Amino acid sequence: MKNPGAAMLVIGDEILSGRTKDRNVAHLATELGTIGIDLREVRIVPDERNRIVESLNELRRVHDYVFTCGGIGPTHDDITSQSIAVAFGCDFAVNEDARKIIADRARSQGLEMNEARLRMARMPVGADLIRNSVSGAPGFVVENVYVLAGIPVIFRAMLSTLLPELSGGKPFHSRTVEVRRPEGELAGPLGEIASQSPDLSIGSYPFAVGGIYGARIVVRGKDPASVDRAMESIKQAFASDAFVE
Amino acid sequence: MKNPGAAMLVIGDEILSGRTKDRNVAHLATELGTIGIDLREVRIVPDERNRIVESLNELRRVHDYVFTCGGIGPTHDDITSQSIAVAFGCDFAVNEDARKIIADRARSQGLEMNEARLRMARMPVGADLIRNSVSGAPGFVVENVYVLAGIPVIFRAMLSTLLPELSGGKPFHSRTVEVRRPEGELAGPLGEIASQSPDLSIGSYPFAVGGIYGARIVVRGKDPASVDRAMESIKQAFASDAFVE
Repeated sequence: MKNPGAAMLVIGDEILSGRTKDRNVAHLATELGTIGIDLREVRIVPDERNRIVESLNELRRVHDYVFTCGGIGPTHDDITSQSIAVAFGCDFAVNEDARKIIADRARSQGLEMNEARLRMARMPVGADLIRNSVSGAPGFVVENVYVLAGIPVIFRAMLSTLLPELSGGKPFHSRTVEVRRPEGELAGPLGEIASQSPDLSIGSYPFAVGGIYGARIVVRGKDPASVDRAMESIKQAFASDAFVE
Repeated sequence: MKNPGAAMLVIGDEILSGRTKDRNVAHLATELGTIGIDLREVRIVPDERNRIVESLNELRRVHDYVFTCGGIGPTHDDITSQSIAVAFGCDFAVNEDARKIIADRARSQGLEMNEARLRMARMPVGADLIRNSVSGAPGFVVENVYVLAGIPVIFRAMLSTLLPELSGGKPFHSRTVEVRRPEGELAGPLGEIASQSPDLSIGSYPFAVGGIYGARIVVRGKDPASVDRAMESIKQAFASDAFVE
C-alpha cells in the first residue's frame, strides 16, 4: 500500500526574492515522515492571486493533502485566504469563531480589534479553524487543504495541533552510512545493491571536506529489516571506507 | 517593460524527505535579482523521471529561463540528464567534450575513467556545457533550460560562470525598515502607502522577539527614487517606532 502523499505550497515574494530563506519545508517533510505521509512536491509562488489559485487547484487534485504556508496575516500583501476561497469557489466572510479568538487576544494585550485584525478572521465560508497557541490568529482547513502561517514558530505550532488528526501510512525507516571514497568509485557497487532492493530508496549525497571525497549513502524504506539488509551489503562492499553515522 | 522571469526545478528525494535543507533557492534568487531576472516559481520534485519531465515541460514553456539543480552525479539515483533528454525529445549520448573534461580530472587525481564517471558525460545531444571549477563534471544548457549540480558549492560555481551570459532586465532596489509595532496596528497606514505606490512591492514580515512585536517592511521596485519616496512615507507614518536597517 502506498502512503498518502502531500504537497506544500509556499506563498511569498520574500522567498522568491532571496531575502528570506525558507525554514518550513524541511520541518513539514520531517514531521509528515514520522506519520507515514510522503511529501511529494513543493511549489513556491509569489503573492499573486492567480498564481496561488492555479497552483492550489493543480496540487489539491493530485495529492491527498496540501499544506500552504504564508500570506494569512493582517497586511495588504496577505492574500492567501481570499485566494483559497477563489480556488474553491467558496464565499469569503468573517468567521465568527476566528473573530472572537483574535479579539480576545488583542484585548488581553491591551489592543483594539481594528480593520486589519478583522482581516485575519476572513476565511472561506465553512472552513474549520487550526488553532495556534503562539499568536492566536488561526489557520484553517478546506477539504484537503491546510492553510498555515508562514512564520516558522507559528507554522510549527499549527502543524503540531494538526498532526494527530491526519491519517498517515507506514513511516519510513532510514539509515545512513558515510563512505569515504569518491562517488565515481562507489557508484558501480552501489548501483548493484540498489537494483537488488527495489522496495528501498537508496540515495547518494556526495561531499568533499578537507581533501576527503566521499558520499553519505541513505537507505530509506518501510520495512526496517530490508533497510538493515541493504545497509549490511553496503558496509561489506565498502569495508574500511564505511563509517556508520 | 517586465523583467525576464525564471523558474527553478529542484530535483531530490533528500529535500522532500527533510533530510537535507535546500541551500540553492535563496542563492539563485539573489543572484538573478542582481541582473534583473525575477525568480517567479520554484518546484521541488522527487528523483522520478515522469515527475521531472512533466514539471520541466510545464516550466520551460511559461518562463524565460529554467534552472534545475540536483541529480547529475554518477550514481544510480542521478536521473536528471536523461529526464531532460526525454522532456525535449532529444537523443541522449556521451558528450565528447564532457567525457574529456571528466577523464582529465580523474587522471589528475590518479583515478580511472570508469562506467560511473562516463555516466556524467551523458547528455541530451546538442547541449552546451556549463563548466565548473570545483569538481570538473560539467552541467549543460538545452534551449532555455540550465542544468546545474545540487551540491551548493558546485551549484554556485556553475551559476557564476553562467550569469554574465544571461540577458537580464532592471535589477530591483530594496530598502527595509523595522517597525516595532504589532502588525495589526501598522497594517492600516501601510496599506494606504502601498495603494499609493502601485509600481512597488511593499512586503510586511512580522516578528516577535523578547516581547517586542513588530515587522520588517521591505520596499522593492525598479525605480530607486520611487523606493526612497515610499520609504520616507513609511518612516513618517510610524515615526519613533521605525528603525532603518
